[in-house]
Amino acid sequence: MKWCRFQDGDTATYGIIEGDTVIAVNGSPFDVWTRTPKTYTLAAVKLLVPVIPPTFYAAGINFREHVTAAAKKRGEEPKFPPYADVGYRANNALIANDEAIVIPKDASELVQYEGELVAVIGKKCRRVSEAEALDYVFGYTIGNDVSERVWQRNDRTLWRGKNTDTFKPMGPWIVTDLDPDALHVTVRLNNRVVAQYDVKGAIFSVSQFISRMSQYLTLYPGDVLWMGTDGDPENMKDGDVVEVEINDIGVLRNPVVRER
Amino acid sequence: MKWCRFQDGDTATYGIIEGDTVIAVNGSPFDVWTRTPKTYTLAAVKLLVPVIPPTFYAAGINFREHVTAAAKKRGEEPKFPPYADVGYRANNALIANDEAIVIPKDASELVQYEGELVAVIGKKCRRVSEAEALDYVFGYTIGNDVSERVWQRNDRTLWRGKNTDTFKPMGPWIVTDLDPDALHVTVRLNNRVVAQYDVKGAIFSVSQFISRMSQYLTLYPGDVLWMGTDGDPENMKDGDVVEVEINDIGVLRNPVVRER
Repeated sequence: MKWCRFQDGDTATYGIIEGDTVIAVNGSPFDVWTRTPKTYTLAAVKLLVPVIPPTFYAAGINFREHVTAAAKKRGEEPKFPPYADVGYRANNALIANDEAIVIPKDASELVQYEGELVAVIGKKCRRVSEAEALDYVFGYTIGNDVSERVWQRNDRTLWRGKNTDTFKPMGPWIVTDLDPDALHVTVRLNNRVVAQYDVKGAIFSVSQFISRMSQYLTLYPGDVLWMGTDGDPENMKDGDVVEVEINDIGVLRNPVVRER
Repeated sequence: MKWCRFQDGDTATYGIIEGDTVIAVNGSPFDVWTRTPKTYTLAAVKLLVPVIPPTFYAAGINFREHVTAAAKKRGEEPKFPPYADVGYRANNALIANDEAIVIPKDASELVQYEGELVAVIGKKCRRVSEAEALDYVFGYTIGNDVSERVWQRNDRTLWRGKNTDTFKPMGPWIVTDLDPDALHVTVRLNNRVVAQYDVKGAIFSVSQFISRMSQYLTLYPGDVLWMGTDGDPENMKDGDVVEVEINDIGVLRNPVVRER
């Protein structure tokens, strides 16, 4: 099943996508819902961020090549994380498919994409095993963990390095019933492939993260877990278009604008 | 005005507290609302966390004595933050007044309170000056930034050191029209005063944080900003009761339980 959230007059409405049609639902896929008779053409609706998470989790560093490339730039040996210690991102930064990533005036040139798989939690869970963990996933979407590397390195926290407004594109929709280990991420900058990797190459899997997190915290319906990226990202500049594609999900596409 | 959120049958309802009476409202103080004819005795209602924030911000280290004491324990010189770089906490960890702080079985003995002022945002804001910043505050409440120091120091992120379920008591209610610089925080452990400080001693003020944050991000109604704590906290153990009092707001009281 393919779920979206879209602008329906004054309200944000969940919808089911079947082919080129969006069927509006009453309620939410994270609670109770029913189909309505209202349908729209997918191309004609304004898609919104597919879910506003109660808590926005991010694996952070979770792929070996990405860790190695970043360490090399700092002249350090790569340090791989010993445990699935999850981090956070912030809702203010979320934008939908097709919305612009806006680079602030005072940002450096080092503003980079990070194409990622996003797991969306469907059921409240606490202290689940790795074997059970995927039963609590509602579905998967795509994220672009846009990062300003000078702020990321020098600020005391990731607040503006990772969470400047518009730095967290997520979407375009959520697809259920996927095997995360069968997914492959491709990033394109202006139609040129700049990153390609298999999700199953992650240091810690979706199951490992959810199981470990749930030993200490409760995951709630709608929470998102961004799985980290691989490779050595390039800079994005004004006028660029960045796309993150994951097979069986779709393409998250965002233009890039620098404030003048 | 004093605002609470309470359990009204099956639903979480906002209420206005006048003396010992809670007046239920329709809607939310962060949007549109109207008084209803329904009233309750304050002592008889189950208070909830007074707001579920879209984004949960925390100043982190923001008081000199607290920074100095923590550095001394690590055998280091204190490093004061050069800028108001805000951090994050997580909604899963929120509990209301009177609910129990539950220390997991495998936590160390170093589970400590941090009594803090919490500013609650009332209006969307972006790029506001320090002079304007407090106009965007709806009111103030109290937070206890419970921390497990071994996890805080050794994990790659603050996920379980700060955000284990029940580690973020907030409440009991929100009070509007206060001057944060006139507020004084007192922490009591089993009725013994263990910390006392003036909010105006902070390294960065509420206005400075909001103004700086808003240069890069949009603050939304209901977002919370925890202002950090001062002093050198003690450990809490099974059976303890911790209270954080702020003049003109009230007392946030929580029992402590260790899992067996």
